[in-house]
Amino acid sequence: MITQTMNKTITFTQQVEFGDCDPARIVWFPNFFRWIDAASRHFFVQCGVPPWHETEKTLGVIGTPLVDTHARFVKTASYGDVLQIHTHIAEWRAKSFVMRYRIMRGDDLIMECDEVRIFAAHREGDNASQPGIRAVAIPSEIRSLCE
Amino acid sequence: MITQTMNKTITFTQQVEFGDCDPARIVWFPNFFRWIDAASRHFFVQCGVPPWHETEKTLGVIGTPLVDTHARFVKTASYGDVLQIHTHIAEWRAKSFVMRYRIMRGDDLIMECDEVRIFAAHREGDNASQPGIRAVAIPSEIRSLCE
Amino acid sequence: MITQTMNKTITFTQQVEFGDCDPARIVWFPNFFRWIDAASRHFFVQCGVPPWHETEKTLGVIGTPLVDTHARFVKTASYGDVLQIHTHIAEWRAKSFVMRYRIMRGDDLIMECDEVRIFAAHREGDNASQPGIRAVAIPSEIRSLCE
Amino acid sequence: MITQTMNKTITFTQQVEFGDCDPARIVWFPNFFRWIDAASRHFFVQCGVPPWHETEKTLGVIGTPLVDTHARFVKTASYGDVLQIHTHIAEWRAKSFVMRYRIMRGDDLIMECDEVRIFAAHREGDNASQPGIRAVAIPSEIRSLCE
Repeated sequence: MITQTMNKTITFTQQVEFGDCDPARIVWFPNFFRWIDAASRHFFVQCGVPPWHETEKTLGVIGTPLVDTHARFVKTASYGDVLQIHTHIAEWRAKSFVMRYRIMRGDDLIMECDEVRIFAAHREGDNASQPGIRAVAIPSEIRSLCE
Repeated sequence: MITQTMNKTITFTQQVEFGDCDPARIVWFPNFFRWIDAASRHFFVQCGVPPWHETEKTLGVIGTPLVDTHARFVKTASYGDVLQIHTHIAEWRAKSFVMRYRIMRGDDLIMECDEVRIFAAHREGDNASQPGIRAVAIPSEIRSLCE
Repeated sequence: MITQTMNKTITFTQQVEFGDCDPARIVWFPNFFRWIDAASRHFFVQCGVPPWHETEKTLGVIGTPLVDTHARFVKTASYGDVLQIHTHIAEWRAKSFVMRYRIMRGDDLIMECDEVRIFAAHREGDNASQPGIRAVAIPSEIRSLCE
Repeated sequence: MITQTMNKTITFTQQVEFGDCDPARIVWFPNFFRWIDAASRHFFVQCGVPPWHETEKTLGVIGTPLVDTHARFVKTASYGDVLQIHTHIAEWRAKSFVMRYRIMRGDDLIMECDEVRIFAAHREGDNASQPGIRAVAIPSEIRSLCE
C-alpha cells in the first residue's frame, strides 16, 4: 500500500521588465533568483504560514535561508513576458527541505530550480555585528500547512 | 572675517558591470542609486564614523535614510567603465543634511545628485511588524568627523 | 476660457518582497526607482504605445531615458506591503516631458517623484563599443496616445 | 606520463554593501549571483579576451550565457565584509565549459559555485522582438587565453 502525500503547488506570476534584461536583451540571470526568492516567500504566505516576524516570536523561526541551489536555464525570456513560477516542496528532510520551482511562459519551460533551504533561528551570541543563524528541526505546524 | 569650514570629500570607485546595463547597452539608472548609497556609507566609514550597529548602541543612530533626492543624468556609461563617485556633505541643517555626489568617468561628468538625509533612530513602538524611524538632531560626534 | 487637457493616469501595482528590504527592515530606496521605471514602461504600454523595439523601426525611438529625477520619500514601506504607483505625464516640453509618480499604500503617500525624460534615438556613430543616444522631438503619435 | 593543463585562476574582490543585505542582516542570496557574473566577465578580461562587442565582430561570440548553475552556501556574509571570488575554468566540453567559483572572506569559505556556460552567437532570425541565441564550439582563440 502506498501512502502518497501530495504537497501543495503555488503559482506566482512575474512580469519581466526592461531593466531586468541585459545588453543581450534577455533576462539577466540573477533576476531569476530574485523572483524565485519571492516565489518561495509567497508559497509560505499562500499556504497560510504567518510572516517570519511572527514565527520569530512563536517558533523562533526567522526565515528560510538557502543552503544549496541548482538551476537549469532552458529558454531565454525578455521584457514584456509574463512568467508563471510553480513552487512546491519536493522533499522534507530532518533539518532541511527541498523547494522545487518551474518557471513557465505559457507552455514553454524557461528555468527549473531545486533548492535546499532550512528553517533558521538566531544563533546564540548572534547580534548586529556578528549576525549568525542555525537550522532548527522542521516545525510540524509549518509542514502541515504546506502539504 | 570669514570662517569657512571645508567639508571632507571622499572618492569611491565603482566598475560598471555587464549586468548593470540594460537592452539599450547603458547603465540602467536605478543602479546609479545603488552605487550612490554605497558611496554614502563609504563616506562615513572613511571619515571614521563607526558602523551603524555600533552607533545604534552609543547614539541610537541606526543609519541615514533618504528623505529627498534630486539627480541629473549628464552622460551615459556602459560596462567596462570605471566611475569615480566624489561625495561630500554640502550642508548641515538642524535635523537633516545634504550629501552631494558627482559621478565622473575621467573628466566626464556622468551624473550629479543632491540628497537630503537624516540620522535615524527607532521610533517608539517600532517593531518587526511595524518598522518605524524618526529623525534625531545631527550628532556633533559624527558631524565633527565629516568636516 | 480654459482648455484643459487631462493626461491619462495609469496605476501599476507592486508587491514589496523580503529581498527589497534592507537591514533596517524597510525598502532599500534604489528599489523604488526599479519600480518607477517599470511603472513608466507600463504607462506607455497601457496607453497603447508599441514596444520600443517596434517604435525603433517606425519612429527611431528606442526608449525614454531619464535626464533628471526628483523624489521625496514620505513614509517607509516593508515586505508584504502592496503599493499602487499612479503615473501620468505632467508636462510636455519641446524635446522632453515630465512623468509624475505617486506611490501609495492605501491612503498613505509613500513616495512621490517627478522625472524629466526624453524620447531617445541612436546617435550617429552609435555602436556597441560607443553607445550613444540623442533626444528627438516629442512624437505626436505617442503624445496623442498618452493624453 | 601525465600532461596537466593548469587553467588560470583570477581573483575578483567585492565589498558587501548595506543594500546587499536583507532584513536578516545577511547578504540576500541573489546578490551572490550578481557578483559571480561580474567575476565571470572579469575572468575573461583578465585573461586578455576582448570585450564581447569586439568578439561579436571577430568570432560572432556575444557573451557566455548560463545553462546550469549549482551553488552551495556555506557561511553568511554581511555589510563591511570584503570577499575574494576565485574563478577558473574547471572543464572544457565540446560546446560548453564549467566555471568554478570559490567566494572567500579571508580563510572562510562563504559560497562555492559550478556553472555550465556556453559561448553564444545570435540565432538565425534573432531580432529585437524575438531575441535568440545559440551555442558555438569553444573558440580556440579564447580557450588558449584562459589556460
